[in-house]
Amino acid sequence: MSMTSPNADAVALTRRLIACPSITPATGEVFAALEEMLAPLGFTVDRFVAGEAPDGPVENLLAWRTTGPGPHFAFAGHLDVVPPGQGWTSDPFVPEVRGDLLYGRGAVDMKGAIGAFVAALHALPDELPGTVSLIITGDEEGPAVHGTLALMERMAARELRPDMCLVGEPTSTARLGDVMKIGRRGSVNMWIRVAGAQGHVAYPHLADNPIPRLIRILTAIEAEVLDEGTDWFQPSNIEITDLEVGNPAHNVIPGAATARISIRFNDRHSGASLIERITAIAAAEGGTVEAKISGEPFLTQPGALSGLVSEAIREVTGLEAALSTSGGTSDARFLSRLCPVVEFGLNNGTMHKLDEAVGIADLGDLARIYALIVRRALAG
Amino acid sequence: MSMTSPNADAVALTRRLIACPSITPATGEVFAALEEMLAPLGFTVDRFVAGEAPDGPVENLLAWRTTGPGPHFAFAGHLDVVPPGQGWTSDPFVPEVRGDLLYGRGAVDMKGAIGAFVAALHALPDELPGTVSLIITGDEEGPAVHGTLALMERMAARELRPDMCLVGEPTSTARLGDVMKIGRRGSVNMWIRVAGAQGHVAYPHLADNPIPRLIRILTAIEAEVLDEGTDWFQPSNIEITDLEVGNPAHNVIPGAATARISIRFNDRHSGASLIERITAIAAAEGGTVEAKISGEPFLTQPGALSGLVSEAIREVTGLEAALSTSGGTSDARFLSRLCPVVEFGLNNGTMHKLDEAVGIADLGDLARIYALIVRRALAG
Repeated sequence: MSMTSPNADAVALTRRLIACPSITPATGEVFAALEEMLAPLGFTVDRFVAGEAPDGPVENLLAWRTTGPGPHFAFAGHLDVVPPGQGWTSDPFVPEVRGDLLYGRGAVDMKGAIGAFVAALHALPDELPGTVSLIITGDEEGPAVHGTLALMERMAARELRPDMCLVGEPTSTARLGDVMKIGRRGSVNMWIRVAGAQGHVAYPHLADNPIPRLIRILTAIEAEVLDEGTDWFQPSNIEITDLEVGNPAHNVIPGAATARISIRFNDRHSGASLIERITAIAAAEGGTVEAKISGEPFLTQPGALSGLVSEAIREVTGLEAALSTSGGTSDARFLSRLCPVVEFGLNNGTMHKLDEAVGIADLGDLARIYALIVRRALAG
Repeated sequence: MSMTSPNADAVALTRRLIACPSITPATGEVFAALEEMLAPLGFTVDRFVAGEAPDGPVENLLAWRTTGPGPHFAFAGHLDVVPPGQGWTSDPFVPEVRGDLLYGRGAVDMKGAIGAFVAALHALPDELPGTVSLIITGDEEGPAVHGTLALMERMAARELRPDMCLVGEPTSTARLGDVMKIGRRGSVNMWIRVAGAQGHVAYPHLADNPIPRLIRILTAIEAEVLDEGTDWFQPSNIEITDLEVGNPAHNVIPGAATARISIRFNDRHSGASLIERITAIAAAEGGTVEAKISGEPFLTQPGALSGLVSEAIREVTGLEAALSTSGGTSDARFLSRLCPVVEFGLNNGTMHKLDEAVGIADLGDLARIYALIVRRALAG
């Protein structure tokens, strides 16, 4: 262990990353800073740009170090941050310690986790054989089309295939270590459109009002019970998020009506199975469906990886981390195609908010947890 | 009878009115033309302006002639016309005869009827005691707030109260005389709003989606059977004419949802009774209702007046006029507060359209029908 290097301090590393403004999509400076942190540790760093407008270009960083035959442990995350918004107490891109907290945009989501992981690498015994990689995108908060997916293609081309992956998203809620994620629900949006025939309200027999049919479709959708939940997932849920007719004329029966729904679903379903199901309901009333799948669900069955993470959390914090699958989507949905994936990181209380801040002590504890995880992962 | 006067020709009178452009609200010239037609017939003419912006000012004309104690017969109508639009074969405000038709904006709606009524007055025997009045507004096609209603106030102030009223709206459909109206449905628009609590789609328990509640309200409204129709009215009808949420964010549960409905209703209901009924349905799901009554329904029970009109139609055209209550609203909804009201006028096939035209023969027939009606109305 070489915790004496100035770079080995998770707080110092995190401050350096925060000081590089990187509103999504992140570019240049913040990647250079991370590259400078990794190169002395013996990592090969591959920085590349992927994609074109409108969802690109996106800057990414793939780094890996092989110290001998053995397990491949990957750490994944992102250097981009959401816009700071107005009203910060101090400059969001000038890291500032006040009391026990380090303030700055990205402090918890998720430059702090990247800083903690680099600090953990400094603590890793050199003699452990295996591969450690970092899968770092500049576009997780944005469209995420040319980020982690492009990194996975890059890895495949280099025949790098991790055996396990830790995503450093801020999963803790009340205290560092109280929650880790072993899965995420899937997400799909659908637009249900019913066409009718426009006409005058006084002569409804000459028109075909699409709204009652749309209402019957939505009533049927509301009555759907997708599932009752699983051991690890809450029940899948449908929300109707928009209705749109856009008819300014009081005396006119409109010619079309549209609703938008959003489904968050567990691993009992796929985006395709849900589209098929909603399409059938809509078709019964002459409605049509367009859909966009934002993410398929994934579940890493509790086992070796989650046990490793739980144990490290317990040793450092004394907490028994809850195994959660709640919340929105993350890039773990892509990485889960490669290997078991668990997400664990800082307290997310100030994530995306004004005055985002991380506990100084938490950064050190997270580095210690990550160090235990990666060491034991390589030890097999 | 003095059908020799040049003014006694319904076609000539109508041409003269068409030649005075009077896109709603009508002003000046066209009223002066009518006043000049009525003065020689012994009418007192009261022209006045009512109301202020935004629904005024509106020019109106009240004319009356009392030849002795006896019944008071009123003819009601309007001198304003809807905008001609682009694409007429000839100038819409230059009356032109082509073939059997007289072309011009207002030919059937309803300068032709006013011309026919003035022609009918020329044919009225002088010795019949009673009162004849003309209730003519310049704003029937517009907001209609300061038109016929203001004329009714003017009449009340002068203690003029008709015993029966004929509105000269174009009620005929395929042939002059096939349809007269003895009533009109009422009309009310309502805005139903459901407020909820905005939130993230991934955390529905922290939000309150208003859309399912709005859908339950609309489902209940769709299930309402207001009535099965009456002897004279078709069933009252509810149309949902708009849905509005306006939520551009796919991942957001919206905070409010609104629907607009339009009800055309018969004399089993009033605007107020329907507002109360819909408000109760909405309240069951926490929704609120705002409403605007466009018109209350009216029915002149078939009897003396409709019999008089039917008989005159039969004598001149040989047709048995259907007693209808269909279509939109007209100023008859106001006049029905004073006395029995029937609407009868020209063929409405070209009403509000390009190349609006009236049959030359129809104008003469309508003048003859009106002459029979007013003569027999005064004769009692």
